[in-house]
Amino acid sequence: MALLARLAQRNDRRIVLLVLDGIGDLRTADQPRTALEEARTPNLDRLVARSALGRLVPVGTGVTPGSGPGHLALFGYEPTSSDADIGRGVLEALGLGLDFPPDVVVARGNFAAVDRDGLLLDRRAGRIPTAEGERICALLARRIEAAGGVLGDGVHVEVHPGEAYRFVLLFRAVEGTPRLDPGLLDTDPQRLGVPPLALMAATGWSGDGAGDRDAEAARETARRIAPAVEALQRELCAEERANTFLLRGFSSLPALPGVGELYGLRAAALAGYPIYRGVAKVCGMDVVDCGKPFEQVLDRLEERWRDFNYFFLHVKGTDMAGEDGDPAAKVAVIEEVDALLPRLLDLEPDVLAITGDHSTPAPMKAHSWHPVPLLVSSELCFADDCERFTEAEAIRGAVGTIPSSELMGLLLANAGKLAKFGA
Amino acid sequence: MALLARLAQRNDRRIVLLVLDGIGDLRTADQPRTALEEARTPNLDRLVARSALGRLVPVGTGVTPGSGPGHLALFGYEPTSSDADIGRGVLEALGLGLDFPPDVVVARGNFAAVDRDGLLLDRRAGRIPTAEGERICALLARRIEAAGGVLGDGVHVEVHPGEAYRFVLLFRAVEGTPRLDPGLLDTDPQRLGVPPLALMAATGWSGDGAGDRDAEAARETARRIAPAVEALQRELCAEERANTFLLRGFSSLPALPGVGELYGLRAAALAGYPIYRGVAKVCGMDVVDCGKPFEQVLDRLEERWRDFNYFFLHVKGTDMAGEDGDPAAKVAVIEEVDALLPRLLDLEPDVLAITGDHSTPAPMKAHSWHPVPLLVSSELCFADDCERFTEAEAIRGAVGTIPSSELMGLLLANAGKLAKFGA
Repeated sequence: MALLARLAQRNDRRIVLLVLDGIGDLRTADQPRTALEEARTPNLDRLVARSALGRLVPVGTGVTPGSGPGHLALFGYEPTSSDADIGRGVLEALGLGLDFPPDVVVARGNFAAVDRDGLLLDRRAGRIPTAEGERICALLARRIEAAGGVLGDGVHVEVHPGEAYRFVLLFRAVEGTPRLDPGLLDTDPQRLGVPPLALMAATGWSGDGAGDRDAEAARETARRIAPAVEALQRELCAEERANTFLLRGFSSLPALPGVGELYGLRAAALAGYPIYRGVAKVCGMDVVDCGKPFEQVLDRLEERWRDFNYFFLHVKGTDMAGEDGDPAAKVAVIEEVDALLPRLLDLEPDVLAITGDHSTPAPMKAHSWHPVPLLVSSELCFADDCERFTEAEAIRGAVGTIPSSELMGLLLANAGKLAKFGA
Repeated sequence: MALLARLAQRNDRRIVLLVLDGIGDLRTADQPRTALEEARTPNLDRLVARSALGRLVPVGTGVTPGSGPGHLALFGYEPTSSDADIGRGVLEALGLGLDFPPDVVVARGNFAAVDRDGLLLDRRAGRIPTAEGERICALLARRIEAAGGVLGDGVHVEVHPGEAYRFVLLFRAVEGTPRLDPGLLDTDPQRLGVPPLALMAATGWSGDGAGDRDAEAARETARRIAPAVEALQRELCAEERANTFLLRGFSSLPALPGVGELYGLRAAALAGYPIYRGVAKVCGMDVVDCGKPFEQVLDRLEERWRDFNYFFLHVKGTDMAGEDGDPAAKVAVIEEVDALLPRLLDLEPDVLAITGDHSTPAPMKAHSWHPVPLLVSSELCFADDCERFTEAEAIRGAVGTIPSSELMGLLLANAGKLAKFGA
């Protein structure tokens, strides 16, 4: 990344990165052909003839990535570096469309139920409906408001409802007090019949959004936040189903150098779902408001074509179909993208990449570790002998199998945005 | 590299590395076949049948290397490490065939023109002819001679003319004074209408030959060298076209462990152009004088066959044709090499590798980042199913796509020069 940033040079050539979320699929006994193999894709097929194929390994061999690392890698960041660690709390908050600075500590909350002895009966409060979660969040918000927005030892607190029993808490030090540190442990003991854990600082690397932190700062943060959390928990003691809550994934926005700063790109994110917009924002991209259907993404792309020279387009349907274990739906999304592809090609991007942030094979109904097929099309891409954009054809593509985090360098090179290294 | 050096064991088996400079090429709309695809190469074709093919990535995905990093990687060095950084000044000096120790600081000079206010009118002095550059260098040399070879604060100075407006200055501390540091910034402001920049130390990693340096030593060097540079510039004030000069690419020879020291090789470089001889020398190879035509390289190879067990042969024509955007010339060079290949094979090298330091696709008229095809032939190479030595065939070769810096290990292994790792 440092080398690329050093070599980066600006020009007006446009790069489009089309992410078909979870596009990679599997051949199994029950599903002998992948969705890409099954789909009728005349436009993609024609594009393949003037493209280089290859495969991306999102994080490492055998490692299944979440959406955060999957996308960070596509944007050129080393997804396992602690700098690029997007915690669960932050990811949940981004998914709700919240906007907050890097000095905010975010935790994901689960409403839960305890018995009269304070022992956990249900870690999800019987999966209460969203409306019920919103009602309880409003209770908490009123409690916070009554305290002038500040609880514990000088901590601004905000609460935002999510889906069903989920919510997020945002903590921020009041002005003039030391910044809060996200190096805190989950209070969820992950089993029933025991009390929720006390709020404590992580002693080392937690691997969940905390990164390497100053243990002392984290202990101080735990001391300041704990009374705020207790005050909010007390507010629920009269509730029937959700009489407490658990907190997980304490984290802050990673303070990453943006792709503008690093590579001189004017980068735009066109994504229908907040979490992808959030990750793109963390990477310094401008978020262009757009709807979920790919057609609407293309509408906005056409409108804003002159304003940027790097576009991240996100299609969620492939991943949803994979998660649902619905191969036919996955094929349908691919065919819909294929049908609309000419609109994208008519813009004549100098470099077009099509890939995914990870595989979501329908037979697994989940993300997986399998390499993700990649297509790169540009005048200089080296058109290889691959005939279709599929997992198996991509094995013999000219790009080879490379880490996702190397894609950015390849796209910059194809766009003439990298100077020569060394004399 | 450390691991290989630990495992290295000596034997008499001979390795030949034939570098076809810039051999990698592109398929584009206007050039549907690469030079290797287009060339008739009956001898290479026969060799492929008993070879393993693969591809080399010189520096990293998307990174276009200069000749220095490209060759260092082929010789087994990590080209992005600051230890292996060959600066512009050093490369220019090596290209002139100069021989100098690692404590010399070299700068590349451009004769330039300033107006009466000292503002730059022309950064290349109207591209004066070589004879004119030589005349002006002789003026400077006389000035240096008049000072007993020492200018500034105890600095030995040498000047050597290059092509047209180019020259090099060599600086070295007089005995008993601290060594000079190459961590200096260019004095070329890269634009007109402003004065040349003062000689200053780089504050961080300059990325151009400086590596990580002691800033203090660099400041001290700037202080000592600056009066020498000013004295030489004053010498030109009466010149009509070239009344000053700019300095770029301050650098010193990297002090690398040689391939003899590392791997016990007796290594020879047979290259017609000084820059490649220079880089090979930096890597501890013996330079065998030879002409530019491949035929003459082979003459010397035959003569010296008993004296070494590692031979680096360099063919420049492929790169020149690529730089000229002349695909037919590139094909012709490949066919010429192919025709002479039997002479090389008649020597029965135990291991023969054919590859390039980088790609120089004719359609780009420049170096590029594309992986470079590689052929390795030895009794133990694992002959794969590839049928011709081309970019596309090499994708499916037995060697796979590996960093150029890993080639040395592969060649040592094929020559039985690496012991087993671990019990």
